[in-house]
Amino acid sequence: MLTMQDALARLTAYWTAQGCLTVQPMNTEVGAGTLNPATFLRVLGPEPWRVVYVEPSVRPDDSRYGENPNRLQTHTQLQVILKPDPGNPQELYLGSLEALGIDIRAHDVRFVEDNWASPALGAWGLGWEVWLDGLEITQFTYFQQAGGLNLEPVSVEITYGIERIIMALQDKTHFKEIIYAPGISVPSEGPGIGNVAAKGISYGEVFGQGEYEMSRYYLDDADVAANRQLLEIYAAEAQRLIDAGLPVPAHTYVLKCSQAFNVLDSRGAVSTADRAAEFARMRRLAGDVARLWVARRDEQGHPLGLVEALPPATATATPAAKTSPRALIFEIGTEELPPAEARSARDYVQRALTEGLSGTRLEHDEVRVFATPRRLVALVASVAAQEPDHLRQVRGPKVGAPAKAVEGFARGQGVPVDQLETALYAEAEHHVARKHEAGGAAAEVLAPVLAKVVTGLRGAKNMRWNDPQLSFSRPIRWLTALWGDDVVPVAVGTLAAGRQTRLLRTASEPIVQVASAETFMETLALAGIVADPEDRHDLIVTGAQDEVYPEGRIDVAGESALIEQITYLVEAPTPLLGTFDESYLSLPDAVLTTVMRKHQRYLPVRDASGALLPMFVTVANGPVDVELVRTGNEAVLRARYEDAAFFYRADRNTPLPDMRERLSRLTFTDKLGSMADRSGRIAALATSLADSLGLSSATLGRAARLVKFDLGSQLVTEMTSLAGVMARDYALHAGEPRDVAQAVYEAELPRNTGDDLPASIPGALLSLADRLDLVTGLAATVGLPTGSSDPFAVRRAVLGLLAVHRAHPALSGLSLLDGLRSAAAQQPVPVPATVLDSAAEFLARRLEQALTEEGKPVDRIRAALPHHARPSVVDTLLTQLDTLVGNPDFVAVAAAIQRARRILPPGTRAGYDPSVLTEPAELALHEAVAGVKPTWGADLVAFTAGVEPLVEPLARFFDEVFVMAEEPALRAARLGLLATVRDLGEGLLDWPELRL
Amino acid sequence: MLTMQDALARLTAYWTAQGCLTVQPMNTEVGAGTLNPATFLRVLGPEPWRVVYVEPSVRPDDSRYGENPNRLQTHTQLQVILKPDPGNPQELYLGSLEALGIDIRAHDVRFVEDNWASPALGAWGLGWEVWLDGLEITQFTYFQQAGGLNLEPVSVEITYGIERIIMALQDKTHFKEIIYAPGISVPSEGPGIGNVAAKGISYGEVFGQGEYEMSRYYLDDADVAANRQLLEIYAAEAQRLIDAGLPVPAHTYVLKCSQAFNVLDSRGAVSTADRAAEFARMRRLAGDVARLWVARRDEQGHPLGLVEALPPATATATPAAKTSPRALIFEIGTEELPPAEARSARDYVQRALTEGLSGTRLEHDEVRVFATPRRLVALVASVAAQEPDHLRQVRGPKVGAPAKAVEGFARGQGVPVDQLETALYAEAEHHVARKHEAGGAAAEVLAPVLAKVVTGLRGAKNMRWNDPQLSFSRPIRWLTALWGDDVVPVAVGTLAAGRQTRLLRTASEPIVQVASAETFMETLALAGIVADPEDRHDLIVTGAQDEVYPEGRIDVAGESALIEQITYLVEAPTPLLGTFDESYLSLPDAVLTTVMRKHQRYLPVRDASGALLPMFVTVANGPVDVELVRTGNEAVLRARYEDAAFFYRADRNTPLPDMRERLSRLTFTDKLGSMADRSGRIAALATSLADSLGLSSATLGRAARLVKFDLGSQLVTEMTSLAGVMARDYALHAGEPRDVAQAVYEAELPRNTGDDLPASIPGALLSLADRLDLVTGLAATVGLPTGSSDPFAVRRAVLGLLAVHRAHPALSGLSLLDGLRSAAAQQPVPVPATVLDSAAEFLARRLEQALTEEGKPVDRIRAALPHHARPSVVDTLLTQLDTLVGNPDFVAVAAAIQRARRILPPGTRAGYDPSVLTEPAELALHEAVAGVKPTWGADLVAFTAGVEPLVEPLARFFDEVFVMAEEPALRAARLGLLATVRDLGEGLLDWPELRL
Repeated sequence: MLTMQDALARLTAYWTAQGCLTVQPMNTEVGAGTLNPATFLRVLGPEPWRVVYVEPSVRPDDSRYGENPNRLQTHTQLQVILKPDPGNPQELYLGSLEALGIDIRAHDVRFVEDNWASPALGAWGLGWEVWLDGLEITQFTYFQQAGGLNLEPVSVEITYGIERIIMALQDKTHFKEIIYAPGISVPSEGPGIGNVAAKGISYGEVFGQGEYEMSRYYLDDADVAANRQLLEIYAAEAQRLIDAGLPVPAHTYVLKCSQAFNVLDSRGAVSTADRAAEFARMRRLAGDVARLWVARRDEQGHPLGLVEALPPATATATPAAKTSPRALIFEIGTEELPPAEARSARDYVQRALTEGLSGTRLEHDEVRVFATPRRLVALVASVAAQEPDHLRQVRGPKVGAPAKAVEGFARGQGVPVDQLETALYAEAEHHVARKHEAGGAAAEVLAPVLAKVVTGLRGAKNMRWNDPQLSFSRPIRWLTALWGDDVVPVAVGTLAAGRQTRLLRTASEPIVQVASAETFMETLALAGIVADPEDRHDLIVTGAQDEVYPEGRIDVAGESALIEQITYLVEAPTPLLGTFDESYLSLPDAVLTTVMRKHQRYLPVRDASGALLPMFVTVANGPVDVELVRTGNEAVLRARYEDAAFFYRADRNTPLPDMRERLSRLTFTDKLGSMADRSGRIAALATSLADSLGLSSATLGRAARLVKFDLGSQLVTEMTSLAGVMARDYALHAGEPRDVAQAVYEAELPRNTGDDLPASIPGALLSLADRLDLVTGLAATVGLPTGSSDPFAVRRAVLGLLAVHRAHPALSGLSLLDGLRSAAAQQPVPVPATVLDSAAEFLARRLEQALTEEGKPVDRIRAALPHHARPSVVDTLLTQLDTLVGNPDFVAVAAAIQRARRILPPGTRAGYDPSVLTEPAELALHEAVAGVKPTWGADLVAFTAGVEPLVEPLARFFDEVFVMAEEPALRAARLGLLATVRDLGEGLLDWPELRL
Repeated sequence: MLTMQDALARLTAYWTAQGCLTVQPMNTEVGAGTLNPATFLRVLGPEPWRVVYVEPSVRPDDSRYGENPNRLQTHTQLQVILKPDPGNPQELYLGSLEALGIDIRAHDVRFVEDNWASPALGAWGLGWEVWLDGLEITQFTYFQQAGGLNLEPVSVEITYGIERIIMALQDKTHFKEIIYAPGISVPSEGPGIGNVAAKGISYGEVFGQGEYEMSRYYLDDADVAANRQLLEIYAAEAQRLIDAGLPVPAHTYVLKCSQAFNVLDSRGAVSTADRAAEFARMRRLAGDVARLWVARRDEQGHPLGLVEALPPATATATPAAKTSPRALIFEIGTEELPPAEARSARDYVQRALTEGLSGTRLEHDEVRVFATPRRLVALVASVAAQEPDHLRQVRGPKVGAPAKAVEGFARGQGVPVDQLETALYAEAEHHVARKHEAGGAAAEVLAPVLAKVVTGLRGAKNMRWNDPQLSFSRPIRWLTALWGDDVVPVAVGTLAAGRQTRLLRTASEPIVQVASAETFMETLALAGIVADPEDRHDLIVTGAQDEVYPEGRIDVAGESALIEQITYLVEAPTPLLGTFDESYLSLPDAVLTTVMRKHQRYLPVRDASGALLPMFVTVANGPVDVELVRTGNEAVLRARYEDAAFFYRADRNTPLPDMRERLSRLTFTDKLGSMADRSGRIAALATSLADSLGLSSATLGRAARLVKFDLGSQLVTEMTSLAGVMARDYALHAGEPRDVAQAVYEAELPRNTGDDLPASIPGALLSLADRLDLVTGLAATVGLPTGSSDPFAVRRAVLGLLAVHRAHPALSGLSLLDGLRSAAAQQPVPVPATVLDSAAEFLARRLEQALTEEGKPVDRIRAALPHHARPSVVDTLLTQLDTLVGNPDFVAVAAAIQRARRILPPGTRAGYDPSVLTEPAELALHEAVAGVKPTWGADLVAFTAGVEPLVEPLARFFDEVFVMAEEPALRAARLGLLATVRDLGEGLLDWPELRL
């Protein structure tokens, strides 16, 4: 059996053989290997660096007294830094797994999107978590920034989670059971030593006591005042050392700051304000340290030398011209793209290549583009061998221009003056040169087009790697470009296209030559790679259904987002069925499916009634050893469920008030206080809204006291998407009334577009209060979302507000604007009126957009939109309009109102002196108007009924009366009469918007 | 080339293969691997443990900005713990050197006594430094105590100094030049990366900047107030965690205390009082942690199991009886004994075996005992095969005792009642049993005798190892006991004697069978082992002289102590000559020879005029590769001289006042203040003594201001034995007058018995002041030395006081007792009168002892001893007595004084009424007495001349006068007259002691 210490030694030896230095762990507590100066400082600047080291990583918050099977206050990282990116870091990494004895051909090893950022370090990078049969064993990151500085060259960071890997390899279910070493054996002539020698020595035996005691320290016994003092002293010392120009000791003190902060945090002693301030301070200090380090290395002339940039690639020779049309294939090979990126890159390539080709004169078929995590493949079934020849006319000086100018033009065009012709441009005759140009050969013409497709690739988030020219969401590693049998001589950055493509990394021959564009897809297909996402999707769906047939089924529609994601996680889908112990079915469904979907990308399996079965389908990549991979994935799921069950049991044993109490340790935002503060605000607001609507109830009162309490549970801390669901579960378990539990659950609804809405009034009120609080607070602090950036999901909250309001006619009396105002009054920060205005405007725009998307006529939407503060009123109005637009009375009155608005000069007020009126028609209208009692509120039907007596007099009035009489008093009375009519519709609709 | 990282990996792999766990360095700063809990905690208690780990060890005080070639603020230890002692740890260790590629047969690897103690940890152990061709590469310790607890079982600690080993193996002269790794190379398809790949990456390139910056922090930039606060916070946290019963985090905080303290120390911010208090606190905390850990492991039932004690050995079968006498050989095989221990053990074995044999009835020749570092060999050329038979008589009841008693006695003796005889005991007739007993066979009789020799072995400092029964200065590993061809069946503890002996560990066959006692010595001799120390001594001396002939010579007499030591450092002496660069001869001789003798045990080589030559002789053990070992030793000496030259240059560039200033950072003792305090007291005392004697001078004044300043120099900090010598050198270099420089030097004289004495009066006064201060201060605080323990060398100081006083007649007026009194008045602690009395008494005893050893007649010494406060007066008196004891006048007067003392009742006072006197003889004496003027002071010659007129009257008085007359008045007058005579000698001598 591979012991843990062997694993560390083997990985170290492997990376040493790859040219890495071995250094020691940091001799002050660090939360991750990244913090060791061998990473944090060395990734900065232009010097090369390759290092491997073990880093016991201290996470006070992960303390569990050694009781949780998978969580430790100190876990062991093995950290590798490759600077610069060697071009093949993934392959090197796979080699390291083989060095551990892992058969990567039998197992399912995958690179699953995972980006990394440490705000406290001003650092980020893009990369993956590496999965071994579904188990996350490594973090793999291309470092882009550290200490706020761009990294040039980029470093590759590979961080192995050793305990996890070993638990998997040794098939252990608790970290304490890991066989750490072969045992304290005494070879040769030594004495026997008790019961240890025989069985190997376990992790628990070596580290168990430390794990327990350090957990005690971090969770219970650390002195808060002392650690607060330490934090201040360390920060001051860091600052002094920065001022003294000493980045190395300064960095040490930044690390000590971080540890002291983490201790305070695990002791629950970090207030919201503290956290923000400390993060800002650490980020600033880390940035200063980074800049200092770079400056020092500069001064020292970079003792380790400089990384030389890779030279640009040279394209292959242009092939001889051909005559017949051939297929074009263009493959852009990448490291694993995130699913969303692969999809949008596919669209981009489609557009860009189509456009590129249309810019040539090559005859060609339609462009088809396929995408997998590792490749974008464009296929054009036929591209002509040659562009047709072409007569090009170049405009020269006007006829009559000086001879010198004309001669110059001819010379410039390489045409004798006497061969210039003339042509009419606009209204002037110009000299022109007409040149017969030969069409380009396909390869030659295609090369720049394809190159431009590559250079134009951009992801939502882009990174750099060892190619100085390129930037994309993941590294581009190869290009395959064939037109027929010929390589299209494309060169971009350091890449020259060839006829090689790469198959699965685990293929017996991972890199192969492709004979021709026509055989390319076949080459991939023979290697099991399904390039077309639609094909993969179908393979996954049918394969999965086959696996579960006949006991169960996959809810293909319900899981469509997940299936779409899986489609872009594999190139060669291999669905396989796994099972789990039925006992886990006692966990809430949401827990089970959240783990499956979010953490593992497993498809849940249900029976005919929709109930979960103790099964799952996972989709491996390539021809793995199915039994092995199944077993591995089952173990991972078991561990995850065990973890969840552990949390679930612990939570159920925690009184609700205790969980609620923990909210004070959770920050909402730095300026808006803790989650406890927010929950308090929600409760108060919901209650006051209910009071104002006469909807108060004991249920609401109790639910308001509990709202969001489950954010303090361990399970929701782990899986935030379960907020509300767990609240209901725990509340019921704690003996709360069913309607209270439901209301606490509903407070979280809707969680996304299309989600369920609160069914009960208490739930709806809490939901509204939650979102009103969120919107006003954030609008006042970070601002309303613009563009695509919406980190706090304010947009979603606003949509929730609208949806809930619209769903509950009982709430139609509630103005969301009043709600925002009430929420604003409760915020810990001032909320200026302008902010409230913007929020209202934002809400109106979202409502307009939503209604438009629902297919409502735009004019009516706009007409009803003044009621956006009460969206259910808008709904009512729109519904009424559906009918009323066919009602002649309504149409007549509406037309009259619109007409009145058009006629009346701005500012004309209602009211008039009836004694001035003379004409019968105007007198009739006067009488009719005087008889109308405007009691319709916002009810258009009532309004129509109410104003029906006006229809006739209005028609007559407009027919017979000249409003703009010369006599001023009369004109004023007539205008006033018309304004009175106009105002009868006031507040009902934005009348001019309505198209009649 | 073996890179440093390879070396770490190889050692780790080697020890892992020996059953060690691999763990990580401590994640808080530690000064040594010992502090890592994997050592400090795990050596406690009864559980087994085997571990190997790297420990970057932080010593703020060793910070040198990376400039010193051999000294770093962070050096790399590789630490191994073997618990229990596996029985062969030295052999395992040698295996690890071979794993590094070191040919231990070619090199000179030696285990040189070096004990280890950490007062702050309450820890100590005995062991060695391991030398590789003269270079200390490893600390090897049998841990005996930690946290104040006895360790049972004992652990073996092996600590490699990696930088040193690598510098030697790579032949580098500066740590920065070490090749740390093969270089940041990029295999396969990666890009080239500048100038590093080709040449390997150096230690300086990897760690140089950190070394510089951390030095800056520790020496210049660390904030003192901040670190003081940290120290307090850490200590408080440690205490809290101890109170909470959590030894693991408590230990972490003890380590943090230690680091904070070290930082303060390197910043020069630790006062004497602080240091003592902090050490006491750390010792207390470490002790509490240790006790807690033991208790916790106990509670947990010792998860790693228990070490099983080795079973007692079973002796070999008793051989058949023989008839002819044969030789006896008894070898006690040990690990390398310290020279002094080997010598005293040899004496012990001689005594014990002689006594043991005399307790048997075996006829035998004289016992001869030889000793080497690894064996004590007793040889008896002939021991009879058999004891003669023997008639034994056992006393029974008195004749006449009850029959039952007599029968019982007979039964007990196994003799029929009728065979009992009788014999006379004292004055009573007893029944006796007379039994004929056969003499024992040699092997049988010898076995218990030899066993007792082994169990009786004791060193000055004893240790335990894996043998539960034994204790000695180093482990006893084998016993060889042969009488003729037979193994003597000795069993002691876990050892059974056999016929195996062990040769050099590097022999092709390190363990051999010995045919017979008679061939034993030959077996050793053939293997090159010279068992007889006298033979080794001669081999070393003649070998060394041969090596240096004809250019130089070894000062055999001058180096006798060193040669004696070397004799016990090797078993198979191989003297070899090394040279060093002549340029180092510019260093002071004392520096050169101190390094050679104390650090390296090299013999200095001088030319005919006594001047040092750039050569040395070292004595390797066994048949090494002479060229290799020479080169190695030369490199070590070069590094040491380079170090010394570095310090010497630095010191010479430091103004004297700056060095003097540094004394305030050196503690003398916790209660007696800093060295600056002490130096101030010495200056004041010397000055006041000079004033009282009229010996003041400008030279003394200046010298007093400088005295001991060189303790603040770097060189003396390194080599304390150079104190004074360097003071003179630096003072002269700084332009001080020659006599001032000499006085400052002489203040340190004599440094040991037989050393030079101060020649000048200023020097002598400073020397006296120094020693007076030392003696009074220590007498008042730690007490005067008793037994063999004299850590502050108070005995030597007293002997110095006596020697200096006796050497300077000009100082004869100075009473050392007055000196002690003056010194006492200056101490920072009260010095009670009783302490001064004890000190004076101590001084008197040392003087008596010294004079006795000089061969002076004991009676005269005792007679003169009342003048011990002025030893030069004692000398004068003794010299005078040499002559005067032949002078009849003196003898007569002395006899009279003695006679008077005998006759006179105690308390008889001088003085009498002359008018009462009647006899002519007494009247004559009265007249003579009245005529004597006592003006002789302490001059016996003058006294003799002065009292000469009394000789005749005294003789007559004693002849004619009966002193004890019946008439009381007359008797009183006669007694008074005689008392007056007696008192003439008062204060001159202790007359009764003098034998006439």
